[in-house]
Formats: sequence, C-alpha cells, structure tokens
Amino acid sequence: MLETVPNPHPDRDYEVSMTAPEFTCLCPLTGQPDFATIRVRYVPDADLVELKSFKLYLWSYRDEGAFHEDVINRILDDLVRACRPKSMTVVGDFNVRGGIHTVITADYKAK
Amino acid sequence: MLETVPNPHPDRDYEVSMTAPEFTCLCPLTGQPDFATIRVRYVPDADLVELKSFKLYLWSYRDEGAFHEDVINRILDDLVRACRPKSMTVVGDFNVRGGIHTVITADYKAK
Amino acid sequence: MLETVPNPHPDRDYEVSMTAPEFTCLCPLTGQPDFATIRVRYVPDADLVELKSFKLYLWSYRDEGAFHEDVINRILDDLVRACRPKSMTVVGDFNVRGGIHTVITADYKAK
Amino acid sequence: MLETVPNPHPDRDYEVSMTAPEFTCLCPLTGQPDFATIRVRYVPDADLVELKSFKLYLWSYRDEGAFHEDVINRILDDLVRACRPKSMTVVGDFNVRGGIHTVITADYKAK
Amino acid sequence: MLETVPNPHPDRDYEVSMTAPEFTCLCPLTGQPDFATIRVRYVPDADLVELKSFKLYLWSYRDEGAFHEDVINRILDDLVRACRPKSMTVVGDFNVRGGIHTVITADYKAK
Amino acid sequence: MLETVPNPHPDRDYEVSMTAPEFTCLCPLTGQPDFATIRVRYVPDADLVELKSFKLYLWSYRDEGAFHEDVINRILDDLVRACRPKSMTVVGDFNVRGGIHTVITADYKAK
Amino acid sequence: MLETVPNPHPDRDYEVSMTAPEFTCLCPLTGQPDFATIRVRYVPDADLVELKSFKLYLWSYRDEGAFHEDVINRILDDLVRACRPKSMTVVGDFNVRGGIHTVITADYKAK
Amino acid sequence: MLETVPNPHPDRDYEVSMTAPEFTCLCPLTGQPDFATIRVRYVPDADLVELKSFKLYLWSYRDEGAFHEDVINRILDDLVRACRPKSMTVVGDFNVRGGIHTVITADYKAK
Amino acid sequence: MLETVPNPHPDRDYEVSMTAPEFTCLCPLTGQPDFATIRVRYVPDADLVELKSFKLYLWSYRDEGAFHEDVINRILDDLVRACRPKSMTVVGDFNVRGGIHTVITADYKAK
Amino acid sequence: MLETVPNPHPDRDYEVSMTAPEFTCLCPLTGQPDFATIRVRYVPDADLVELKSFKLYLWSYRDEGAFHEDVINRILDDLVRACRPKSMTVVGDFNVRGGIHTVITADYKAK
Repeated sequence: MLETVPNPHPDRDYEVSMTAPEFTCLCPLTGQPDFATIRVRYVPDADLVELKSFKLYLWSYRDEGAFHEDVINRILDDLVRACRPKSMTVVGDFNVRGGIHTVITADYKAK
Repeated sequence: MLETVPNPHPDRDYEVSMTAPEFTCLCPLTGQPDFATIRVRYVPDADLVELKSFKLYLWSYRDEGAFHEDVINRILDDLVRACRPKSMTVVGDFNVRGGIHTVITADYKAK
Repeated sequence: MLETVPNPHPDRDYEVSMTAPEFTCLCPLTGQPDFATIRVRYVPDADLVELKSFKLYLWSYRDEGAFHEDVINRILDDLVRACRPKSMTVVGDFNVRGGIHTVITADYKAK
Repeated sequence: MLETVPNPHPDRDYEVSMTAPEFTCLCPLTGQPDFATIRVRYVPDADLVELKSFKLYLWSYRDEGAFHEDVINRILDDLVRACRPKSMTVVGDFNVRGGIHTVITADYKAK
Repeated sequence: MLETVPNPHPDRDYEVSMTAPEFTCLCPLTGQPDFATIRVRYVPDADLVELKSFKLYLWSYRDEGAFHEDVINRILDDLVRACRPKSMTVVGDFNVRGGIHTVITADYKAK
Repeated sequence: MLETVPNPHPDRDYEVSMTAPEFTCLCPLTGQPDFATIRVRYVPDADLVELKSFKLYLWSYRDEGAFHEDVINRILDDLVRACRPKSMTVVGDFNVRGGIHTVITADYKAK
Repeated sequence: MLETVPNPHPDRDYEVSMTAPEFTCLCPLTGQPDFATIRVRYVPDADLVELKSFKLYLWSYRDEGAFHEDVINRILDDLVRACRPKSMTVVGDFNVRGGIHTVITADYKAK
Repeated sequence: MLETVPNPHPDRDYEVSMTAPEFTCLCPLTGQPDFATIRVRYVPDADLVELKSFKLYLWSYRDEGAFHEDVINRILDDLVRACRPKSMTVVGDFNVRGGIHTVITADYKAK
Repeated sequence: MLETVPNPHPDRDYEVSMTAPEFTCLCPLTGQPDFATIRVRYVPDADLVELKSFKLYLWSYRDEGAFHEDVINRILDDLVRACRPKSMTVVGDFNVRGGIHTVITADYKAK
Repeated sequence: MLETVPNPHPDRDYEVSMTAPEFTCLCPLTGQPDFATIRVRYVPDADLVELKSFKLYLWSYRDEGAFHEDVINRILDDLVRACRPKSMTVVGDFNVRGGIHTVITADYKAK
C-alpha cells in the first residue's frame, strides 16, 4: 500500500520528518479505540515515502487490533521495506490509558 | 505483583516510556500524603512490563511510608527484577514540600 | 473536622480562593483511585476556613469511595456548614478516565 | 444507548462538564476520517449522564458519516432526550481540514 | 464563488466558527505580500457556508491588493450576502509590519 | 511611608495596575517566610501612588508576621488612605503551603 | 505628525487594534530608558490612523522624558485629536522597574 | 537574485540564523497554496546573505510549484552558491496537509 | 546548619535534584532585597542532604548581604562540605535588576 | 566604559549568564530603531563584568547605527577586552524586520 517517489536530491543526506496526530487503532484485548500521534523521521536514499499513501497506510489501522509496542515496530518495518532509507525513527505517542501515558520509539539504520 | 509479556520484537533495540502522573505515597515521618509523577524509560530484552500490573504496582504505594530517594530506587529494582531490561531509567518528580521541589533519577544498565 | 478562625475584616466583602491540586479518593464502583484538583472560592462572613483543617478534611477522602458529582456537592455542603460564607463556589477538576475529562462546579449563595 | 443515573443533588443547580478529545467519525463525502474534541457542559435536573455509556455513545460514530454541523446538533439532541437537563451546551472542535479549523457550538435550555 | 449548503438544524440558533491561518494578499501600496489569520464566527439561518468554496474564496485574494481594514469588511459583506446569517463576526489578525501587529474585527447582525 | 504624586490627568477616569512579584512576609504562627505576588489596580482621583514609596512599603513587611487574609486588607486600607482613589483592587497570590495555593482579593469603591 | 486615511466602511462600527511592542522613552527623573508595549483599540468614524505615521509618532518618544501615567494619556489625546474615533482605548504595558510591573489603561468615548 | 554583503568579522566563526514564517508556494500536483516557515542557520565565510534580497528570493516562490523535499534542497543550493558559507542548514516546516505535518532539514558543510 | 541522612542506595549512582524558588537575600551595596530560584543537582555518595535543614539553610540568607556570583559558590561549598557528593551543580536564577536577568551556575566533581 | 570587579572564586570554573531584553540601536541604512535581546554567557577568569557598567554599555548603542552581525561581534570584543574571560558567548536575538527574525551567535575561547 505504501508508495514511493524518487528522491530528487539523492546525493545529499537530508532529513524528512512527518507527524500524524490522527492515528487510531483498536486494543486487541478490549476492542476499545486507542489514539496516538505517529512521528516518522528518516534520511532518504533513492526513494521518498509518498505522503498520500502514508496517510492511507495509517488509516488502515483504524479497524485493526494492535499492541502499542508491536504496532510501532510494524510501521517501522513496513516503511523501511517500502523506501529503503539510510536511517529511520518511528515514535508512537499514545493517549493516557489507566492514568499512564506511553511512548514507543524504534530506530533503523542501514548497514 | 509486576507481570510481563513477551517482547514481540526482541531482535531490535527500541525504547518504551511510561509516565504515571498519579503516584501517591505517605511521608514516613509525618504520615502526610506525598504526590509524584513517575517516569519509566527502558529498552526491553525478552520481556515487556505488562501495563495493568504496573498500574496496580504503583497503587500499592498508596498506604505505604516511603522516602523520596528510597522509593525511586526500589521501583527501579522491582522493575529490573521483573522484566530484565537492557537498560532502564526511573524518574520521580515530587510535588513541592516546604517550598522545595524534588526530582530523583536512577538508572540501570545490564552488563 | 473543618475548623474556622474569625474573619479579621468582616466589614468588607472580599474573596478567598484556595486551590488544592492533591485531592484523591476511590471510585465507589471499581475501588480504583481517582485524582482531582479542588478549587474553593468564597466571600467570608464572620468566619474564615482554617487552612490546616481544610487540608486534613481533604485528606479524609483518601480511602473513601465517592462519585464525582456527589463529592463536590458534599464538600460544598460541609464548607458552608462550617464557615457560613456569604457565597461560595467549589470546583472539582478530575483527571481523565476512559478518555474523558470531567469538571464539576457547584455554587452556594446565602439568602 | 445513552444511560443515566439519578442526580444525587437535584435540589441545587450545579454544572457538569465532560471533555472527550478522542472523537472520530467519517466524512460523508470522501469517507476520510475526521477527528474532534467534544465538550459537553450541562446543569442536570433529575438525571446525570452515565459516563461509560457516554463514552460508548461517542464510539458509535467511529464508522458513521457525519457533517460537522449536523453531528454536534445530533449529539445535543440525543443527550437532551436521555437526561432532560435544565440546560446544556455541546461543542465540537474539529481538526484542521484544507487549512481551516472548524468549531461548532449548540445550546439547549429547558423551558 | 462562495457556495452554501442548507442548514440541517435551522430551528436552533447555534454557532459555527471557522479559522483560516493561511490567508495572504498583497499590499496595494508596495506590492509586498501580507499574511493574516482570518476568523469567521456566525449563527446560520437557512444556509451554511460551504467549506471548500470558502477556502477557494480566501485563495482568490492571493494576487489582489487589499488594505487591512477594507479586506475584512469585504469578506464580511461577501459572506453575509452568500449565506444570510442571523449574525456574523469576521476577524483579520495580520502579521507584524513595521513593528506593529494589527487586528481588524467587524460584526453583522440581521435586523 | 506611602507617598503620592499629583495625577496629571485628573479629568479622565483611567486605570493604573502595579504587579509586585517579590513580596515576602513571615507566618505569625511558625515564623516561616511566606511569598506572594501583590497586584494593585486602581482608578486615581487627585493623586497617584508614588512607585518607589510603594516598593519600600512592600519591603516593610519583610520582617513582619501577617496572616494572608489580613495583610491584603491592610495593604488596601493603607493605599486607599494614602491616595484616595475612585476605586481600587488588591490581590495577594500566595505560594503553595501544605499543598494549597491561596489567593485573596479585596476591593474598595469611593462613595 | 499623526496622519489619517479615510475610513472605507464608515457606515459600519468595527474595531481596529494595533499593538506596538517596541516603544521606548526616557525616565524624566533618572534619564534611564523605559520600554513598553503600546496597545491601541478603536472604532473609527470618518478616519483611520495611518499606520506608518503612527509608527513614526511612537518613535518620537525615543528621546523624550515621560512618566508612565502621563505618556499614555498624551498618546490617547493625540490619537483622538487626529482621527476623531467613536471610541478608543490606549494601554501601556511597561517593563519591570524596581521589581514592579506597571500597566496604564485609558479610554475615550465620543459623546 | 540573492545578494551578499562582506562579512565584517571574517576572522571569527559565528552563526547567523534567519527565520521566515511567511513562505508560500504552490503544490505542483493540485496548484493549491502551501505554507511553511523557513529557517536558515549558517557560519559565514567571506560573505553574508543580504537580508532584503533573501526576503525577495523567498517571495519568488509565491507563484511557483514546488515539492517540499525539493524546494528546501533548492533553497540550500541557491544560498550556498550565493554566499559560500563554512556551513549551512535549511529547515522547512510545512503546515498540516491531510492531517500530516512535514519538516525537511538539509545541511551543507564546506570541504 | 546543613544536616545529612545516610544514602539508602550508596551502591548506585543516581541523581537528586532540589529546586527552591523562594530564595531571598540582600544586595550588599544598596541593602535592597534580591530574589532567586536556587537549583541543586547532585549524585550522592554516603550521605543525602536532609531536606528540612536545607530549607533552613537557605532561609539563613534572608538578612544577609550577598553578591550573586559569591552566594552561589558559597552554597556549593557548604553543600559539598556537608554531604561529600560524587558531583554537584548549584544554579542561582536571579530576578531582573536594572533590566538584566542573571543566572550563575557552579559545578563540583569529587576527584 | 565597561568595568570589572575581582572574581571572588577564581579557583573554580563557573558560568555567569546575563540576559538583557531591552537593547535598542538604529539601522545604519534607514535610521529606524532596531530592538534585540542580548544574552551573554561566560566563564570568568580573574574578573567579573560589573553589572551596572554593562547596562550603561548597552545603553550606549541607543543612538548608534549598527548592523546585526557587526554589533554582536563588537559587544563580544569589548567584553573580552574588559574582563578576559576563559570563554564567552554573545547572542543577539533581533525583533522581526520584513517578516524575518534574525539571531546572531558569536563565541570566544581563551587560548
């Protein structure tokens, strides 16, 4: 589902950051909606993440059950597979549940 | 009391941060209630801290006398024993008492 | 439990406001701790609320089950009975539960 | 779906405010998700809105198409029908779409 | 250019507020770009302002010279003519020029 | 100790507001220092409060025991006696003690 | 020095607000520089204050000694004389001197 | 179009930072206006960027179609070519589109 | 005057931070009161600073003349002598005087 | 003009930071006033900058034309010459001109 466009400046290492405050999925135990802000930061290589497909990709979690730690690692895996960046960080900042605020941060670095 | 769940991505070092602004215990000298925000940040190894048991664990201090410096070190010891993380930081940010605001920060690093 | 001290300036209508961000009680259904900031604003008549007894009064809810709407009305009733103010407002600003933030505001005006 | 509980202090006019920052529905034209914060403020008469049923009621919009102006008026109608308040205000504060931030505010007053 | 849609709840007086932080026009004296946030607040009668046409209407000022005081009154006139509201306020909050920050506020009330 | 200077525009009702965040006195019970921000707002008649004498006047409380409610009413009385304003408000915003934040507000209006 | 331009919408009562955070004058007693933010808010009649001349007018105080209370009343007098507004408010928000922050607010209303 | 002025202190490495919150260009796909804040930070060598020509240079994008990632790299290229800095960073902080906020950061370092 | 208590976790390097926003002393030249926030951050060795004695220690400056740079170094010396920490930082953040805001930061590291 | 006082703790490396938000000079091209906040941070050696002379030194720019990049380097040169610090940073944070906000940062390190 994630699409890419060619990086217009592949010769230079620069950073792209995308913040999506409208992420929602379902708790796999209770079926209750969870809400999060997803932050992606990456140094592109040959390809950029196409913005509209990224938005649709995030929407695809709307009816899916997902644990916090798992979903952030899966988003990182999917984005890395799609655009093969030099490096990437995905952060999930989840709304308070049971009085506790959870943030998950996962990194990738091309070898 | 603290329970764990298996880390779904044990192959990757990533960070989990949990912030609990509703911590309360009692002053061991005066019996007066103390209030704090507890922040835990860790890189899991084989196990994740199970969120609900963490909430119940923090509630268990509600009727217990505890010095600021001691309680933060004890929370760190208990969490490390439960989930054996690669590294962990516990911060206790205590409400003003006698016009003084106290913050305790303790770290653990697996050898 | 609530004590009073004589108003040193009963001839003038002035306002006293007290904000206590460290209120905690228990949910009567689940037994889980609830947290709130309590704000009291009043125009004293013959008596002022004695500050230390007010603090102890709020602590007395620590182990008590109380619905949000009920507890704020009870605090207002108790304070009015104790100090007979010309007017009083009690606000309870409760921490998020189930993704919802609740505030209760109750007023009293002497006839 | 909305349930009520008896008002424990029907003799006094007081205000209940509930803020739910996790409202989401779908755009009836494009099917795209919309996000909003819903604020309800009311003076109860014989009945209070039961908090958990209110949370479930808001979740019921998750898969429903709804125009901004319409959905806020419908929430007000449903809440008024359920708890018959003395007065009520419903505010919907919708996330930016097309560079424009929209807020809808509807009031009800019992005659 | 401004289009309308029928008000789904014409029986109730409620308020619609739209904030557009991306307004730009040209200074009629120097040709230099001006930037402003436009805020519209109205009580609809039979018709609502259609959001997308409002966005296009604001874009139409991009290449047009317009004095601050004049443009806000013109936007109010155009919106009133289009949707015949019961009342309306238009605010233009213009970026600093020459060290001075200007805000223009114009109101309309149907007779 | 409080001095005045003639109001240069006695023909017009205008407001003067002075905020002094560096007020300190002693608790009459415990001898412990208290800290407050003092806000004065008044409409002058024939005389203005001279700023430097006001600063010295506030310093004079540094070694004096004073209850919150009393000290604000005394400051209002002293200022009214000194400059005979058309109206005046004195606010004392005291630092947290025992987890409670207190604000006292007293008004004067010339007859 | 203050110039005006004709009000393009004299038929409607609307508000113009100008905020100038870069006002500086000299203390008439010590010769030390004073700094303030000047806020002007008015409902124009036949004429608007020309923005550039207002900026130059404020600069003219740079080397002039001026008491806080006096300078705000003089700015109001000069602006009223220049543009004959239906109503006007001038606020001077002066930087802290001797630990005290002073704000002067003067109003004019056409008869 | 970009002009330079000689660096008055070429012997010392110091940093110049310029923030322009009023950047606007067009989306090359839809023709819709995009808005961004542009931040430039550089250590000058022999030449400084002349501020007025930089402002005019940014205005030149007003009617031009430009992808986010591309435009920031082009601004960096143009500035580097004009003033030959020791190092430079250009950041483009773009307004939310489709619920996603994008920031592009590109660096240059002289060899 | 400064007292200590034994560190309950001397085996682990952890950080204690204490912030006291209610520090006041006198200017040695003019006798005028000065106000500051004092921040202490240290890694304890065998002993912790006893909180109440620290509060009393800070009060002891209330009637003492002290230059900004000197007082912060003296507080650091006194605290180091009392509790022999592994490392310590003392920061004094002084209120504006003559339009200038001063912050002093002094560090100690055990050899 | 800049005076110094002997450093009371020359044996320890500590930092002094002074922030002056009331700096104003003139644009050498247009004669228009410029406004900035000046921040100085240094590690003293034998001498401290005397605060009052620093204030007077900054006032001396009030009627002087000065380019942003030049004035910050000159202030650094003058301060270094006066007090011979171990290291020093001077930052000038200038108010928006032509929609652009400029910050200049210059460092000195003793060899």
